[in-house]
Amino acid sequence: MTIDIQKFRDLNPGERILMGPGPSDVPARVLQAMASPCIGHLDPYFLKIMDETQQLLRFLFQTNNALTIPVSGTGSAGMETCFVNLVEPGDDVVVCINGVFGTRMADIVNRIGGKLIRVEAEWGRAIDPEAVRKAVEGRNPKLIAVVHAETSTGARTTLEDIAGIAKKCGALFLVDAVTSLGGVELAVDKIGIDAVYSGTQKCLSCPPGLSPVSLSDAALKVLKGRKTPVVSWYLDMGMVGSYWGAERKYHHTAPVNMIYGLREALRIIAEEGLEARFSRHKLNHKALVAGIEGMGLSMQVPEAERLTTLNAIRIPEGVDDVKVRKALLNDFGIEIGGGLGNLAGRIWRVGLMGHSSRKKNVLLFLTALETILKSQGVKVKPGGVEAAAAVYPKA
Amino acid sequence: MTIDIQKFRDLNPGERILMGPGPSDVPARVLQAMASPCIGHLDPYFLKIMDETQQLLRFLFQTNNALTIPVSGTGSAGMETCFVNLVEPGDDVVVCINGVFGTRMADIVNRIGGKLIRVEAEWGRAIDPEAVRKAVEGRNPKLIAVVHAETSTGARTTLEDIAGIAKKCGALFLVDAVTSLGGVELAVDKIGIDAVYSGTQKCLSCPPGLSPVSLSDAALKVLKGRKTPVVSWYLDMGMVGSYWGAERKYHHTAPVNMIYGLREALRIIAEEGLEARFSRHKLNHKALVAGIEGMGLSMQVPEAERLTTLNAIRIPEGVDDVKVRKALLNDFGIEIGGGLGNLAGRIWRVGLMGHSSRKKNVLLFLTALETILKSQGVKVKPGGVEAAAAVYPKA
Repeated sequence: MTIDIQKFRDLNPGERILMGPGPSDVPARVLQAMASPCIGHLDPYFLKIMDETQQLLRFLFQTNNALTIPVSGTGSAGMETCFVNLVEPGDDVVVCINGVFGTRMADIVNRIGGKLIRVEAEWGRAIDPEAVRKAVEGRNPKLIAVVHAETSTGARTTLEDIAGIAKKCGALFLVDAVTSLGGVELAVDKIGIDAVYSGTQKCLSCPPGLSPVSLSDAALKVLKGRKTPVVSWYLDMGMVGSYWGAERKYHHTAPVNMIYGLREALRIIAEEGLEARFSRHKLNHKALVAGIEGMGLSMQVPEAERLTTLNAIRIPEGVDDVKVRKALLNDFGIEIGGGLGNLAGRIWRVGLMGHSSRKKNVLLFLTALETILKSQGVKVKPGGVEAAAAVYPKA
Repeated sequence: MTIDIQKFRDLNPGERILMGPGPSDVPARVLQAMASPCIGHLDPYFLKIMDETQQLLRFLFQTNNALTIPVSGTGSAGMETCFVNLVEPGDDVVVCINGVFGTRMADIVNRIGGKLIRVEAEWGRAIDPEAVRKAVEGRNPKLIAVVHAETSTGARTTLEDIAGIAKKCGALFLVDAVTSLGGVELAVDKIGIDAVYSGTQKCLSCPPGLSPVSLSDAALKVLKGRKTPVVSWYLDMGMVGSYWGAERKYHHTAPVNMIYGLREALRIIAEEGLEARFSRHKLNHKALVAGIEGMGLSMQVPEAERLTTLNAIRIPEGVDDVKVRKALLNDFGIEIGGGLGNLAGRIWRVGLMGHSSRKKNVLLFLTALETILKSQGVKVKPGGVEAAAAVYPKA
């Protein structure tokens, strides 16, 4: 078996403006860190880098949880990690479902033999804590799981009330923070979250490949008290934690250069400061909404339940979803996302996450969208871009 | 909660010569590819990169298997992928154990409810096909699993006879090729392997983080015929295969920049050619052994069962294992590995994998080792380095 090497050209991905549901734009500093020489996963310098990465992650999650680490897989691996470590066959598990990622949680719970209790909300809406309260009445579930930021719809669920319900019924509280961590307020300890995971390619603006995970002491106690082994060897937090902790016991080879990149992304976040970062995400979101509404289009999610990081725009009647997205990508180099499931063809998903959440991107996107819609004969109200620009403070 | 950003200095891992059990030295071209701009995981250009990566992996594995992809995790995730997709609770599974990685396979089989049939060999020796034949007598196991290259001991097991036994009893044949793929002959289709996995950080000389996996049509048939769902959502090859295949159905976000790096590492391999690459690994191994024996030390594994990629050197009586390795790392910048399990303190593991398998590295390591041993009062026969140098063709 031979191969014609001439067919495989030099890598040349060009430049995109990443305004889809992730990955977001990666700062040059993060890419440069990833290109640093690879060293051993037990090298004293790398162990120091691991410690620092954990400290920076604790700051980001606003937690003192000892077990706060990047899992060696993407955000979905983080989701699987939390469930396989905390749920045993037969356990009652409440999963709140208002989009693709709640559905995925339910799928995982079924695979590992948990007894699924579904709490549903319309796609594009937040989870109503009252529905959770009703679902747990007379029950003592092991765990209540909710998606903070539904990447598939742009809806944000408020966590405090559901955390209170979990506490009251003695359940662990598990949160998907894939599209919120680093972009939206999320104080893990203050809220009372026991298990939380995210991804690197959203509001952290590091390439995809790692999943920051944090487990509370209560979660670790549940893990230690299991009657059955964790079904996944790779994601067994007992063993993974021994490598990341003081023991440094070899488990699997850490993805060294990805961790270089994550650490640099976390340094950038710490330099900006969490409050400033969340404010920036709010401002750019506000400008985008002003522009979209100024153009006569509308947002899918009610104002009080909107994410600042992932913006679902209703596709106007008669507009060709795919044609618009192709024109954005091919003519303007801007990536946005389409809808998933029920919302396919009905919404565009515009990410303003991490390094992508910038005034320049908001104005470029709105200008490009206006141009494309007009070229396709769609009536657009004038002044959308100006309405967005007016949201920003005067220079 | 605040953080003192001054504590977290600019990344500066320095340079190491990586001659441990992995990661191996990463060529600059691979690091540069990883630092290319991140684009979307459904971007048309990235889909092309995915296709090319699969073509290059098929060449590397010497297979026509359609499902030949990098799993989004390290080598251990590849191991777990093969088992969780092909084994259902109650299935008879033969696992050959002659080191850490066979032991890990057995652990995984137990976690997922397979009925484990162990075939053992002394650590540091190959698996004897006769032992496998005896173990399957009167049985029809679902799967026979073996480690081609035991990273923990440096032993290489010949695969052809065991493949024949698997075929005869109707079992799938699963191979761990973590420390052989790209360094040691491994023709997947010719041998008749149904499931094989590797890691990027060994003989491919790409940073850790991905696990090349290939499944045969027979393996896919078993996967499709399962009565129970695959317990891992993240590693479910039915769904992962739909993203990598023609459907392009979103599953999880691919680790874009890691795949850039892997593709570049595979291009480098294709440019060198498989035969030339295997010969290079043999030559450097031969030189290392000549040097070690020339110095009066000895190899752990019998000659006929030795890997060329991972070399287990017996630690001479009275020599302080850790002190020698620390001196190698701190004074010479050379990383080697210690022994694991029974062999801890008894062997050094010297990797000559991928880009690390070079004449320069062999001679540097032997020189450094001789210097360190002498400085610690150990008697070393003169002429070791010269014996190694003499193995290479005259310039």
